[in-house]
Amino acid sequence: MQERDLDRPHGVYAAVLTPFDDDEAPDPGALALHCRWLLGNGCDGLSVLGTTGEANSLSVDERLALLERLVDDGIPAPVLLPGTGCCALPDTVRLTRRAVELGCPGVLMLPPFYYKGVSEDGLFAAFSDVIERVGDAALRIYLYHFPQMSGVPLPAALIERLLARYPQTIAGIKDSSGDIGNMLANAARFPGLGVFSGSDELLLPLLRGGGAGCITGVSNVAAFLARTVDQGWRQGDADAAEAAQARLTEVRQAFLSFPLSAALKETLARHTGRGRWRRLRPPLLPLNATDADTLAERLSAIAFTPPSVP
Amino acid sequence: MQERDLDRPHGVYAAVLTPFDDDEAPDPGALALHCRWLLGNGCDGLSVLGTTGEANSLSVDERLALLERLVDDGIPAPVLLPGTGCCALPDTVRLTRRAVELGCPGVLMLPPFYYKGVSEDGLFAAFSDVIERVGDAALRIYLYHFPQMSGVPLPAALIERLLARYPQTIAGIKDSSGDIGNMLANAARFPGLGVFSGSDELLLPLLRGGGAGCITGVSNVAAFLARTVDQGWRQGDADAAEAAQARLTEVRQAFLSFPLSAALKETLARHTGRGRWRRLRPPLLPLNATDADTLAERLSAIAFTPPSVP
Repeated sequence: MQERDLDRPHGVYAAVLTPFDDDEAPDPGALALHCRWLLGNGCDGLSVLGTTGEANSLSVDERLALLERLVDDGIPAPVLLPGTGCCALPDTVRLTRRAVELGCPGVLMLPPFYYKGVSEDGLFAAFSDVIERVGDAALRIYLYHFPQMSGVPLPAALIERLLARYPQTIAGIKDSSGDIGNMLANAARFPGLGVFSGSDELLLPLLRGGGAGCITGVSNVAAFLARTVDQGWRQGDADAAEAAQARLTEVRQAFLSFPLSAALKETLARHTGRGRWRRLRPPLLPLNATDADTLAERLSAIAFTPPSVP
Repeated sequence: MQERDLDRPHGVYAAVLTPFDDDEAPDPGALALHCRWLLGNGCDGLSVLGTTGEANSLSVDERLALLERLVDDGIPAPVLLPGTGCCALPDTVRLTRRAVELGCPGVLMLPPFYYKGVSEDGLFAAFSDVIERVGDAALRIYLYHFPQMSGVPLPAALIERLLARYPQTIAGIKDSSGDIGNMLANAARFPGLGVFSGSDELLLPLLRGGGAGCITGVSNVAAFLARTVDQGWRQGDADAAEAAQARLTEVRQAFLSFPLSAALKETLARHTGRGRWRRLRPPLLPLNATDADTLAERLSAIAFTPPSVP
């Protein structure tokens, strides 16, 4: 068991889904309800407006409105780790500045992701530009490494340069590469950096290597399992942690081969009885009926249901 | 020589660079000046706000302001084919609607490009959503196929479905894949579709296969060569077309191995004496001094200079 700084974000974060209404508009009330349920069922924090939350399918105004509404609705800003990284730096600056103003303890930041094969100098300039323009000492950035989706990896050499220049600001990394070797290498090389796994099945291996926790889509329905992994590990109960990890991995595998946001929304629609959960904004689409039934059968076969809803 | 519909966009379009001022803000006056120069030196039209123009590094408000200012400054809307495709559909709708209102004869539309591996149904829904929400019979879409950058290819099956449902609206495709086979296959399969090459070196082969022209970055400095290719081909002067194509390809090759927008901006900075041309917005950066000199030497070795500036 390694030490970690409990004053900084750690533990289990859901990569929170974004509910939509009938006209494909985000539904802030339904989002706040879901967030409250997540906090009551195993989540230490909420990474809203990330990949699973379809943030890049939302305009900047829509994202700002959702974030502000969550805080207005009483979701405590200190549990929020919103995604703010856009293709265009002015958008990233605007979202990031507002998140800091609202009291979020950090933001999850994709690199600008349209241009591929950009130089390390260019990526450094991009993050640097955002930090300088936000210009707030309270800013804490969690770099978002998701090469399969963004097409723009964040190599260790870049992290090292950013940490050297902005040691207070660069607080962590979410690693959705699925590569435990990369996560462990970053955790070992940068002891002050909070390394979060984007993969449920890698939570315990990463915690053992000094990681901070996980930020995952499956935590929208199964955060209580990740919580048990995290608590077992913190309390030195290896058996409990391993048993919960095995169960969490089993649940994660039931979702494999389906588009994740659609599969999670389908599961919540069936679980809550709220059919609107099935809505996604194009280019993402709901599961078709066959896939929806197959997924339900797989979850049933492993006797998994999300926690009860109020 | 094949027939083509001269009432629709055709010929040589520059993928117009976006000049920036000292604070990395787009410079609308410099853009208008550049556009005017391009129209006087070989361009049939101007595809502003595309990949070469760093559009995805600009906020939607910045893009709208540039487009409106160009038209205000007297650049005729009928020569404009602006890029309007964003990750978020509300942004795409907003930009597209305004482009149509301003009188642009078409827009160049990337698919939503954050999510990778999305279904053909999802892409169809995305384009369909934009068309329905813009809701203007005057809208003409040029699909933007650039899989190496967007990560989201537009296969022929998708084009076929879109054409079947929106035969008036789906007007063409810009193909930046560099794959002449794909361009020729689309030109042959969809006779009414205006197929533009994003690669200078493929202009003549595509014209011979029924293509509509080219939309390229190198046309920011060498549109007069592409113009000669296009006119030679239209007038049945194969020798002139081939000679100009060979020269254009030679110029294009001088730019190879440099990031294109930076290399074109460097060339214009030296040619015009306006050092501000060197600015790009991160994650793109200006060429370093060594690369800038190497590029200048390569262009000098083939005795290439852009047309004179007023």
